[in-house]
Amino acid sequence: MQIFRVVSELVTTKRNFWLSAKPLRVVEDCFGNLEVALDPIGAKSGDFVVTIGLSAARVAAGNPKITTDLTIGGIIDHWDEDSWR
Amino acid sequence: MQIFRVVSELVTTKRNFWLSAKPLRVVEDCFGNLEVALDPIGAKSGDFVVTIGLSAARVAAGNPKITTDLTIGGIIDHWDEDSWR
Amino acid sequence: MQIFRVVSELVTTKRNFWLSAKPLRVVEDCFGNLEVALDPIGAKSGDFVVTIGLSAARVAAGNPKITTDLTIGGIIDHWDEDSWR
Amino acid sequence: MQIFRVVSELVTTKRNFWLSAKPLRVVEDCFGNLEVALDPIGAKSGDFVVTIGLSAARVAAGNPKITTDLTIGGIIDHWDEDSWR
Amino acid sequence: MQIFRVVSELVTTKRNFWLSAKPLRVVEDCFGNLEVALDPIGAKSGDFVVTIGLSAARVAAGNPKITTDLTIGGIIDHWDEDSWR
Repeated sequence: MQIFRVVSELVTTKRNFWLSAKPLRVVEDCFGNLEVALDPIGAKSGDFVVTIGLSAARVAAGNPKITTDLTIGGIIDHWDEDSWR
Repeated sequence: MQIFRVVSELVTTKRNFWLSAKPLRVVEDCFGNLEVALDPIGAKSGDFVVTIGLSAARVAAGNPKITTDLTIGGIIDHWDEDSWR
Repeated sequence: MQIFRVVSELVTTKRNFWLSAKPLRVVEDCFGNLEVALDPIGAKSGDFVVTIGLSAARVAAGNPKITTDLTIGGIIDHWDEDSWR
Repeated sequence: MQIFRVVSELVTTKRNFWLSAKPLRVVEDCFGNLEVALDPIGAKSGDFVVTIGLSAARVAAGNPKITTDLTIGGIIDHWDEDSWR
Repeated sequence: MQIFRVVSELVTTKRNFWLSAKPLRVVEDCFGNLEVALDPIGAKSGDFVVTIGLSAARVAAGNPKITTDLTIGGIIDHWDEDSWR
Protein backbone atom coordinates (compact mmCIF):
# COMPACT_ATOMS: atom_id res chain seq x y z
CA MET A 1 0.00 0.00 0.00
CA GLN A 2 1.15 3.52 -0.56
CA ILE A 3 1.01 6.84 1.22
CA PHE A 4 -0.51 9.76 -0.69
CA ARG A 5 -1.74 13.27 0.08
CA VAL A 6 -5.15 14.24 -1.28
CA VAL A 7 -4.85 17.18 -3.71
CA SER A 8 -8.32 17.78 -5.10
CA GLU A 9 -11.51 16.26 -6.37
CA LEU A 10 -11.71 15.11 -10.02
CA VAL A 11 -14.88 15.47 -12.08
CA THR A 12 -15.56 13.19 -15.06
CA THR A 13 -19.06 13.72 -16.38
CA LYS A 14 -18.53 11.22 -19.18
CA ARG A 15 -17.62 8.18 -17.19
CA ASN A 16 -17.55 4.40 -17.51
CA PHE A 17 -20.67 2.93 -15.96
CA TRP A 18 -18.79 0.53 -13.71
CA LEU A 19 -16.58 3.24 -12.25
CA SER A 20 -19.74 4.14 -10.29
CA ALA A 21 -20.67 7.56 -8.94
CA LYS A 22 -18.23 7.42 -6.00
CA PRO A 23 -15.96 10.49 -5.70
CA LEU A 24 -12.54 10.45 -7.33
CA ARG A 25 -9.61 12.29 -5.75
CA VAL A 26 -6.37 13.43 -7.34
CA VAL A 27 -3.62 12.30 -4.95
CA GLU A 28 0.14 12.94 -4.98
CA ASP A 29 3.05 10.89 -3.68
CA CYS A 30 6.12 12.29 -1.92
CA PHE A 31 7.70 13.17 -5.28
CA GLY A 32 4.63 15.10 -6.44
CA ASN A 33 3.55 12.43 -8.93
CA LEU A 34 -0.21 12.44 -9.41
CA GLU A 35 -2.60 9.49 -9.46
CA VAL A 36 -6.37 9.17 -9.14
CA ALA A 37 -8.04 7.19 -6.35
CA LEU A 38 -11.63 6.26 -5.61
CA ASP A 39 -12.67 7.53 -2.20
CA PRO A 40 -15.30 5.55 -0.29
CA ILE A 41 -14.46 6.97 3.14
CA GLY A 42 -14.56 10.75 2.66
CA ALA A 43 -11.00 12.07 2.74
CA LYS A 44 -10.46 15.83 2.46
CA SER A 45 -7.84 17.77 0.52
CA GLY A 46 -4.60 17.80 2.47
CA ASP A 47 -5.29 14.50 4.28
CA PHE A 48 -2.55 11.88 4.20
CA VAL A 49 -4.07 8.53 3.23
CA VAL A 50 -3.12 4.89 2.71
CA THR A 51 -4.20 3.65 -0.71
CA ILE A 52 -5.00 0.08 -1.76
CA GLY A 53 -4.13 -0.98 -5.27
CA LEU A 54 -4.64 -3.97 -7.52
CA SER A 55 -7.67 -6.26 -7.32
CA ALA A 56 -7.95 -5.45 -3.63
CA ALA A 57 -8.92 -1.92 -4.68
CA ARG A 58 -12.22 -3.19 -6.00
CA VAL A 59 -13.08 -5.05 -2.82
CA ALA A 60 -12.09 -1.98 -0.84
CA ALA A 61 -14.53 0.08 -2.94
CA GLY A 62 -17.35 -1.92 -1.41
CA ASN A 63 -18.19 -3.86 -4.57
CA PRO A 64 -15.77 -5.99 -6.66
CA LYS A 65 -17.61 -4.89 -9.81
CA ILE A 66 -16.47 -1.30 -9.35
CA THR A 67 -13.62 -0.81 -11.79
CA THR A 68 -11.11 1.06 -9.69
CA ASP A 69 -7.43 0.13 -9.45
CA LEU A 70 -6.69 2.49 -6.54
CA THR A 71 -8.93 3.05 -3.53
CA ILE A 72 -8.38 5.07 -0.37
CA GLY A 73 -8.17 2.59 2.52
CA GLY A 74 -7.55 4.78 5.53
CA ILE A 75 -6.72 8.28 6.72
CA ILE A 76 -3.40 8.36 8.57
CA ASP A 77 -3.64 9.76 12.10
CA HIS A 78 -0.15 11.25 12.35
CA TRP A 79 1.95 12.04 9.30
CA ASP A 80 3.78 15.08 8.08
CA GLU A 81 6.28 16.22 5.49
CA ASP A 82 9.18 15.08 7.67
CA SER A 83 7.95 11.50 7.99
CA TRP A 84 7.52 11.37 4.28
CA ARG A 85 11.05 11.61 3.13
CA MET B 1 -5.94 5.23 -11.77
CA GLN B 2 -3.86 7.49 -13.93
CA ILE B 3 -4.31 10.64 -15.95
CA PHE B 4 -3.34 10.49 -19.62
CA ARG B 5 -3.81 12.60 -22.72
CA VAL B 6 -5.03 10.84 -25.87
CA VAL B 7 -2.44 11.13 -28.66
CA SER B 8 -3.77 9.09 -31.58
CA GLU B 9 -5.53 5.94 -32.67
CA LEU B 10 -3.51 2.71 -33.06
CA VAL B 11 -4.23 0.22 -35.81
CA THR B 12 -3.29 -3.45 -35.43
CA THR B 13 -4.70 -5.51 -38.28
CA LYS B 14 -3.09 -8.69 -36.98
CA ARG B 15 -4.59 -8.82 -33.52
CA ASN B 16 -5.28 -11.31 -30.75
CA PHE B 17 -8.89 -12.48 -30.98
CA TRP B 18 -9.72 -11.62 -27.37
CA LEU B 19 -8.47 -8.07 -27.67
CA SER B 20 -11.75 -7.53 -29.57
CA ALA B 21 -12.41 -4.92 -32.23
CA LYS B 22 -12.73 -2.00 -29.82
CA PRO B 23 -10.56 1.01 -30.70
CA LEU B 24 -7.09 1.34 -29.21
CA ARG B 25 -5.63 4.77 -28.38
CA VAL B 26 -2.03 5.76 -27.86
CA VAL B 27 -1.99 7.84 -24.67
CA GLU B 28 0.79 9.80 -22.98
CA ASP B 29 1.44 10.68 -19.35
CA CYS B 30 2.77 14.01 -18.05
CA PHE B 31 6.34 12.95 -18.87
CA GLY B 32 5.46 12.03 -22.47
CA ASN B 33 5.69 8.28 -21.85
CA LEU B 34 3.39 6.37 -24.18
CA GLU B 35 1.00 3.53 -23.38
CA VAL B 36 -1.91 1.97 -25.23
CA ALA B 37 -5.46 1.94 -23.83
CA LEU B 38 -8.70 0.35 -24.98
CA ASP B 39 -11.38 2.98 -25.47
CA PRO B 40 -15.00 1.93 -24.90
CA ILE B 41 -16.36 5.47 -24.40
CA GLY B 42 -15.14 7.41 -27.45
CA ALA B 43 -12.36 9.76 -26.35
CA LYS B 44 -10.83 12.07 -28.96
CA SER B 45 -7.21 13.05 -29.51
CA GLY B 46 -6.24 15.76 -27.03
CA ASP B 47 -8.77 14.67 -24.39
CA PHE B 48 -7.48 14.19 -20.86
CA VAL B 49 -8.76 10.87 -19.54
CA VAL B 50 -8.68 8.71 -16.41
CA THR B 51 -7.47 5.20 -17.17
CA ILE B 52 -8.25 2.00 -15.29
CA GLY B 53 -5.57 -0.64 -15.11
CA LEU B 54 -5.19 -4.20 -13.84
CA SER B 55 -8.00 -6.72 -13.81
CA ALA B 56 -10.48 -3.87 -13.43
CA ALA B 57 -9.54 -2.85 -16.99
CA ARG B 58 -11.28 -5.90 -18.35
CA VAL B 59 -14.48 -5.26 -16.46
CA ALA B 60 -14.33 -1.63 -17.58
CA ALA B 61 -14.10 -2.83 -21.19
CA GLY B 62 -17.60 -4.22 -20.83
CA ASN B 63 -16.57 -7.88 -20.84
CA PRO B 64 -14.01 -9.54 -18.52
CA LYS B 65 -12.92 -11.78 -21.38
CA ILE B 66 -11.50 -8.81 -23.27
CA THR B 67 -7.75 -8.95 -22.76
CA THR B 68 -6.93 -5.34 -22.04
CA ASP B 69 -4.78 -4.19 -19.14
CA LEU B 70 -5.60 -0.47 -19.58
CA THR B 71 -9.03 0.95 -20.35
CA ILE B 72 -10.25 4.52 -20.55
CA GLY B 73 -12.67 5.05 -17.66
CA GLY B 74 -13.70 8.66 -18.02
CA ILE B 75 -13.02 11.95 -19.77
CA ILE B 76 -11.92 14.65 -17.35
CA ASP B 77 -14.08 17.78 -17.42
CA HIS B 78 -11.44 20.33 -16.46
CA TRP B 79 -7.74 19.64 -16.78
CA ASP B 80 -4.85 21.41 -18.38
CA GLU B 81 -1.09 21.41 -18.61
CA ASP B 82 -0.82 23.44 -15.40
CA SER B 83 -2.80 20.95 -13.33
CA TRP B 84 -0.63 18.18 -14.63
CA ARG B 85 2.66 19.10 -13.17
CA MET C 1 8.74 -10.51 -3.80
CA GLN C 2 10.72 -7.65 -2.38
CA ILE C 3 13.05 -7.01 0.51
CA PHE C 4 12.12 -4.19 2.88
CA ARG C 5 13.18 -2.98 6.32
CA VAL C 6 10.43 -2.25 8.82
CA VAL C 7 10.48 1.43 9.84
CA SER C 8 7.51 1.96 12.14
CA GLU C 9 3.90 1.17 12.83
CA LEU C 10 1.17 3.18 11.05
CA VAL C 11 -2.07 4.14 12.76
CA THR C 12 -5.23 4.82 10.73
CA THR C 13 -8.21 5.23 13.03
CA LYS C 14 -10.52 5.99 10.11
CA ARG C 15 -10.02 2.86 8.07
CA ASN C 16 -11.76 0.84 5.37
CA PHE C 17 -13.67 -2.03 6.96
CA TRP C 18 -12.05 -4.70 4.81
CA LEU C 19 -8.54 -3.58 5.61
CA SER C 20 -9.22 -5.34 8.95
CA ALA C 21 -7.64 -4.50 12.27
CA LYS C 22 -4.31 -6.19 11.49
CA PRO C 23 -1.26 -3.96 12.13
CA LEU C 24 0.17 -1.87 9.30
CA ARG C 25 3.91 -1.21 9.09
CA VAL C 26 5.73 1.52 7.18
CA VAL C 27 8.56 -0.26 5.34
CA GLU C 28 11.44 1.11 3.26
CA ASP C 29 13.37 -0.36 0.34
CA CYS C 30 17.11 -0.04 -0.23
CA PHE C 31 16.64 3.44 -1.73
CA GLY C 32 14.65 4.68 1.26
CA ASN C 33 11.33 4.67 -0.61
CA LEU C 34 8.41 4.06 1.75
CA GLU C 35 5.47 1.69 1.35
CA VAL C 36 2.90 0.29 3.76
CA ALA C 37 2.51 -3.44 4.42
CA LEU C 38 0.03 -5.49 6.43
CA ASP C 39 1.83 -7.55 9.05
CA PRO C 40 0.25 -10.86 10.05
CA ILE C 41 3.42 -12.36 11.55
CA GLY C 42 4.67 -9.74 14.01
CA ALA C 43 7.76 -8.08 12.54
CA LYS C 44 9.55 -5.46 14.63
CA SER C 45 11.08 -2.14 13.57
CA GLY C 46 14.50 -2.77 12.03
CA ASP C 47 13.65 -6.30 10.84
CA PHE C 48 14.41 -7.13 7.22
CA VAL C 49 11.38 -8.82 5.67
CA VAL C 50 10.20 -10.39 2.43
CA THR C 51 6.95 -8.84 1.24
CA ILE C 52 4.29 -10.43 -0.97
CA GLY C 53 2.41 -8.21 -3.36
CA LEU C 54 -0.51 -8.45 -5.73
CA SER C 55 -3.47 -10.77 -5.21
CA ALA C 56 -1.20 -13.14 -3.30
CA ALA C 57 -0.99 -10.45 -0.62
CA ARG C 58 -4.59 -11.07 0.32
CA VAL C 59 -4.14 -14.82 0.66
CA ALA C 60 -1.00 -14.18 2.70
CA ALA C 61 -3.04 -11.98 5.03
CA GLY C 62 -4.98 -15.08 6.05
CA ASN C 63 -8.21 -14.08 4.31
CA PRO C 64 -8.64 -13.17 0.62
CA LYS C 65 -11.27 -10.62 1.59
CA ILE C 66 -8.70 -8.50 3.39
CA THR C 67 -7.93 -5.63 1.06
CA THR C 68 -4.16 -5.42 1.29
CA ASP C 69 -1.84 -5.22 -1.73
CA LEU C 70 1.37 -5.79 0.29
CA THR C 71 1.77 -8.30 3.11
CA ILE C 72 4.83 -9.31 5.09
CA GLY C 73 5.61 -12.93 4.18
CA GLY C 74 8.70 -13.72 6.21
CA ILE C 75 11.44 -12.29 8.37
CA ILE C 76 14.87 -12.77 6.79
CA ASP C 77 17.32 -14.64 8.99
CA HIS C 78 20.52 -13.04 7.75
CA TRP C 79 20.57 -9.74 5.92
CA ASP C 80 22.41 -6.49 6.37
CA GLU C 81 23.13 -3.20 4.66
CA ASP C 82 25.95 -4.77 2.64
CA SER C 83 23.77 -7.49 1.14
CA TRP C 84 21.26 -4.88 0.18
CA ARG C 85 23.14 -2.96 -2.39
CA MET D 1 -0.88 -2.01 -22.84
CA GLN D 2 2.61 -1.21 -24.00
CA ILE D 3 4.47 -0.84 -27.25
CA PHE D 4 7.56 -3.00 -27.72
CA ARG D 5 9.87 -3.99 -30.55
CA VAL D 6 10.66 -7.69 -30.93
CA VAL D 7 14.41 -8.31 -30.53
CA SER D 8 14.91 -12.07 -30.68
CA GLU D 9 13.60 -15.47 -29.70
CA LEU D 10 14.44 -16.83 -26.22
CA VAL D 11 15.12 -20.52 -25.64
CA THR D 12 14.56 -22.10 -22.21
CA THR D 13 14.95 -25.86 -22.39
CA LYS D 14 14.37 -26.25 -18.66
CA ARG D 15 11.00 -24.63 -18.33
CA ASN D 16 8.02 -24.56 -16.00
CA PHE D 17 5.34 -26.94 -17.28
CA TRP D 18 2.57 -24.34 -17.29
CA LEU D 19 4.57 -21.84 -19.32
CA SER D 20 3.69 -24.18 -22.22
CA ALA D 21 5.69 -24.69 -25.40
CA LYS D 22 4.62 -21.40 -27.01
CA PRO D 23 7.51 -19.26 -28.28
CA LEU D 24 9.00 -16.59 -26.05
CA ARG D 25 10.36 -13.33 -27.51
CA VAL D 26 12.78 -10.87 -26.00
CA VAL D 27 11.21 -7.43 -26.54
CA GLU D 28 12.53 -3.92 -25.86
CA ASP D 29 10.77 -0.69 -24.99
CA CYS D 30 11.68 2.75 -26.31
CA PHE D 31 14.44 3.08 -23.70
CA GLY D 32 16.01 -0.25 -24.65
CA ASN D 33 14.80 -2.03 -21.52
CA LEU D 34 14.25 -5.73 -22.14
CA GLU D 35 11.32 -7.92 -21.16
CA VAL D 36 10.12 -11.34 -22.27
CA ALA D 37 6.71 -11.92 -23.87
CA LEU D 38 4.81 -15.03 -24.91
CA ASP D 39 3.95 -14.89 -28.60
CA PRO D 40 0.77 -16.66 -29.73
CA ILE D 41 0.43 -14.76 -33.02
CA GLY D 42 3.81 -15.11 -34.72
CA ALA D 43 5.63 -11.78 -34.55
CA LYS D 44 9.02 -11.48 -36.20
CA SER D 45 12.17 -9.73 -35.01
CA GLY D 46 11.88 -5.99 -35.70
CA ASP D 47 8.08 -5.95 -35.53
CA PHE D 48 6.48 -3.32 -33.31
CA VAL D 49 3.85 -5.00 -31.13
CA VAL D 50 1.25 -4.17 -28.49
CA THR D 51 1.69 -6.31 -25.39
CA ILE D 52 -0.95 -7.30 -22.86
CA GLY D 53 0.12 -7.67 -19.25
CA LEU D 54 -1.38 -8.79 -15.97
CA SER D 55 -4.00 -11.49 -15.69
CA ALA D 56 -5.26 -10.56 -19.17
CA ALA D 57 -1.97 -11.93 -20.50
CA ARG D 58 -3.04 -15.44 -19.64
CA VAL D 59 -6.38 -15.14 -21.37
CA ALA D 60 -4.59 -13.63 -24.38
CA ALA D 61 -2.32 -16.69 -24.47
CA GLY D 62 -5.36 -18.77 -25.37
CA ASN D 63 -5.57 -20.56 -22.01
CA PRO D 64 -5.79 -18.92 -18.57
CA LYS D 65 -3.69 -21.74 -17.13
CA ILE D 66 -0.67 -20.61 -19.13
CA THR D 67 1.56 -18.78 -16.68
CA THR D 68 2.60 -15.76 -18.69
CA ASP D 69 2.47 -12.19 -17.40
CA LEU D 70 3.14 -10.57 -20.80
CA THR D 71 1.63 -11.69 -24.10
CA ILE D 72 1.83 -10.16 -27.57
CA GLY D 73 -1.64 -8.93 -28.46
CA GLY D 74 -1.19 -7.39 -31.89
CA ILE D 75 1.31 -6.30 -34.50
CA ILE D 76 1.14 -2.56 -35.12
CA ASP D 77 0.50 -1.63 -38.74
CA HIS D 78 2.35 1.68 -38.82
CA TRP D 79 4.95 2.61 -36.26
CA ASP D 80 8.50 3.83 -36.40
CA GLU D 81 11.28 5.27 -34.28
CA ASP D 82 9.84 8.77 -34.64
CA SER D 83 6.43 7.81 -33.27
CA TRP D 84 8.09 6.17 -30.34
CA ARG D 85 9.58 9.09 -28.60
CA MET E 1 8.20 -11.74 -17.93
CA GLN E 2 11.62 -10.56 -16.86
CA ILE E 3 15.19 -11.74 -17.08
CA PHE E 4 17.09 -12.06 -13.81
CA ARG E 5 20.34 -13.62 -12.63
CA VAL E 6 20.19 -15.80 -9.51
CA VAL E 7 22.36 -14.32 -6.74
CA SER E 8 21.84 -16.50 -3.68
CA GLU E 9 19.40 -18.45 -1.58
CA LEU E 10 17.31 -16.59 1.04
CA VAL E 11 16.43 -18.15 4.38
CA THR E 12 13.35 -17.03 6.33
CA THR E 13 12.76 -19.29 9.31
CA LYS E 14 9.77 -17.23 10.45
CA ARG E 15 7.63 -17.43 7.35
CA ASN E 16 4.01 -17.06 6.31
CA PHE E 17 2.37 -20.49 6.15
CA TRP E 18 1.12 -20.08 2.59
CA LEU E 19 4.51 -19.12 1.24
CA SER E 20 5.23 -22.86 1.57
CA ALA E 21 8.63 -24.47 2.10
CA LYS E 22 9.81 -24.01 -1.49
CA PRO E 23 13.23 -22.36 -1.83
CA LEU E 24 13.46 -18.59 -2.26
CA ARG E 25 16.23 -17.05 -4.37
CA VAL E 26 17.54 -13.51 -4.35
CA VAL E 27 17.70 -12.45 -8.01
CA GLU E 28 19.08 -9.30 -9.66
CA ASP E 29 18.11 -7.49 -12.84
CA CYS E 30 20.53 -5.90 -15.31
CA PHE E 31 20.79 -2.79 -13.12
CA GLY E 32 21.67 -4.80 -10.02
CA ASN E 33 18.25 -4.26 -8.39
CA LEU E 34 17.33 -7.17 -6.12
CA GLU E 35 14.06 -9.06 -5.89
CA VAL E 36 13.07 -12.39 -4.36
CA ALA E 37 11.60 -15.26 -6.41
CA LEU E 38 10.17 -18.65 -5.51
CA ASP E 39 12.08 -21.41 -7.28
CA PRO E 40 10.16 -24.59 -8.14
CA ILE E 41 12.62 -25.79 -10.81
CA GLY E 42 16.02 -25.72 -9.11
CA ALA E 43 18.02 -22.80 -10.52
CA LYS E 44 21.57 -22.32 -9.29
CA SER E 45 23.44 -19.13 -8.40
CA GLY E 46 24.67 -17.47 -11.59
CA ASP E 47 21.90 -18.92 -13.78
CA PHE E 48 19.98 -16.49 -15.98
CA VAL E 49 16.26 -17.16 -15.56
CA VAL E 50 12.90 -15.97 -16.86
CA THR E 51 10.59 -14.98 -14.02
CA ILE E 52 6.80 -14.98 -14.01
CA GLY E 53 5.02 -12.31 -11.99
CA LEU E 54 1.51 -11.43 -10.97
CA SER E 55 -1.22 -13.99 -10.38
CA ALA E 56 0.47 -16.28 -12.90
CA ALA E 57 3.31 -16.62 -10.38
CA ARG E 58 1.07 -18.63 -8.10
CA VAL E 59 -0.01 -21.03 -10.81
CA ALA E 60 3.64 -21.38 -11.84
CA ALA E 61 4.49 -22.34 -8.26
CA GLY E 62 2.42 -25.47 -8.75
CA ASN E 63 -0.43 -24.39 -6.48
CA PRO E 64 -2.47 -21.16 -6.75
CA LYS E 65 -2.68 -21.04 -2.95
CA ILE E 66 1.04 -20.44 -2.67
CA THR E 67 1.44 -16.74 -1.97
CA THR E 68 4.30 -15.82 -4.27
CA ASP E 69 4.26 -12.85 -6.63
CA LEU E 70 7.42 -13.87 -8.53
CA THR E 71 8.29 -17.41 -9.61
CA ILE E 72 11.14 -18.72 -11.73
CA GLY E 73 9.64 -20.04 -14.95
CA GLY E 74 12.64 -21.24 -16.92
CA ILE E 75 16.41 -21.28 -17.11
CA ILE E 76 17.67 -19.48 -20.23
CA ASP E 77 19.90 -21.63 -22.44
CA HIS E 78 22.07 -18.89 -23.88
CA TRP E 79 22.43 -15.52 -22.25
CA ASP E 80 25.33 -13.40 -21.14
CA GLU E 81 26.21 -9.93 -19.94
CA ASP E 82 26.36 -8.63 -23.51
CA SER E 83 22.83 -9.72 -24.36
CA TRP E 84 21.59 -8.06 -21.22
CA ARG E 85 22.21 -4.47 -21.96
